[in-house]
Amino acid sequence: MAWDTEGTRRRIREAAAAEFAEHGPDGTTVAQIAERAGVNKERLYNYFGDKRALFHSVLGDELDKLAAGVAGAAEAAGVSGRGYEDIGEFAGRTFDYHADHPELARLLQWEGLAGGPPADQIERTKHYRAKVESVAAAQRDGLLADDLDPGHLVFLLIALAASWHFVPQLAHMITGADGDDPGERARRREFVVRAAGRLAGASRPE
Amino acid sequence: MAWDTEGTRRRIREAAAAEFAEHGPDGTTVAQIAERAGVNKERLYNYFGDKRALFHSVLGDELDKLAAGVAGAAEAAGVSGRGYEDIGEFAGRTFDYHADHPELARLLQWEGLAGGPPADQIERTKHYRAKVESVAAAQRDGLLADDLDPGHLVFLLIALAASWHFVPQLAHMITGADGDDPGERARRREFVVRAAGRLAGASRPE
Repeated sequence: MAWDTEGTRRRIREAAAAEFAEHGPDGTTVAQIAERAGVNKERLYNYFGDKRALFHSVLGDELDKLAAGVAGAAEAAGVSGRGYEDIGEFAGRTFDYHADHPELARLLQWEGLAGGPPADQIERTKHYRAKVESVAAAQRDGLLADDLDPGHLVFLLIALAASWHFVPQLAHMITGADGDDPGERARRREFVVRAAGRLAGASRPE
Repeated sequence: MAWDTEGTRRRIREAAAAEFAEHGPDGTTVAQIAERAGVNKERLYNYFGDKRALFHSVLGDELDKLAAGVAGAAEAAGVSGRGYEDIGEFAGRTFDYHADHPELARLLQWEGLAGGPPADQIERTKHYRAKVESVAAAQRDGLLADDLDPGHLVFLLIALAASWHFVPQLAHMITGADGDDPGERARRREFVVRAAGRLAGASRPE
């Protein structure tokens, strides 16, 4: 019988994503991940290298899924992501993804708290800079207001979608509502879409 | 010679704030804090109770300083925090505070990641709800646009000011600039003030 290499890798990645999201890289050991995955620790090292390499691999995978999820939803909706309504929907879809996958915001926070070079720095920087460039182009074309720096604006659109999961306790105390409640989740999404459109929209008086 | 009780408490609080901000409550031991403060561990327990109580005490202090800092800056500027420009400046002052005290955003993140009841929950909820009520009143008076939920708006204003410190690695990759650079810090502040005004401002077309 051949080793089920792909299945083993997948089990390790899933176990690592769960442990890292819950406890962060500093609060997790490779032994814990191996045990959760039901895999020999040495096998894990052979496949993924050390703990930091595994954390970077897991976070990189999760970010790929976010990008694919948001782009897939955009394609299904037949929008390009460049215009005014599209910016709102980009923020809304990013919000949906984070609401469905709260572990991603946690992984991003652990990464920030740990300091040091981020996972997949070169690829992510390219991806983000392409998004900034597409916002800048939409500003030049008059599709979006051009009085906000496009880099700061892209960062804010992401923060607008994800912050509810960065500090859920603040969101709960401030809004007086539980983000897991379906009604509140829908209201937050509507707010995100509207706020994004208002921030980025063209033809608004200063 | 009398024990310098206040001085000892202060040293413990400072040591705890630094250790907690760096490593989080789960990554810090009372022994580490006591050693950093140069204080006997038993004395620390006597003064502050257990580690979680000390974490809550430290975070509560830091939030008091934030509130006093933002309110003090508002008073010095002679603004009430209710009108259109004032909302921008509220966000700008909150941004300044976080930029000057990056440990606060870290403490808030550790609190959120740990889950469980937040520090000073009752007082903080009161404080936040009062701010939401003041935004709602300004909306009713036509000083702010009334088509965004006031609770969501207050949350967003805080996220707008603080997110740069929640995920500094994203801010760096997206903007291509270092938040500690004085020019970039000034540009981010200007963006925060403008974005807050645009989000909350009255008399804007839908």
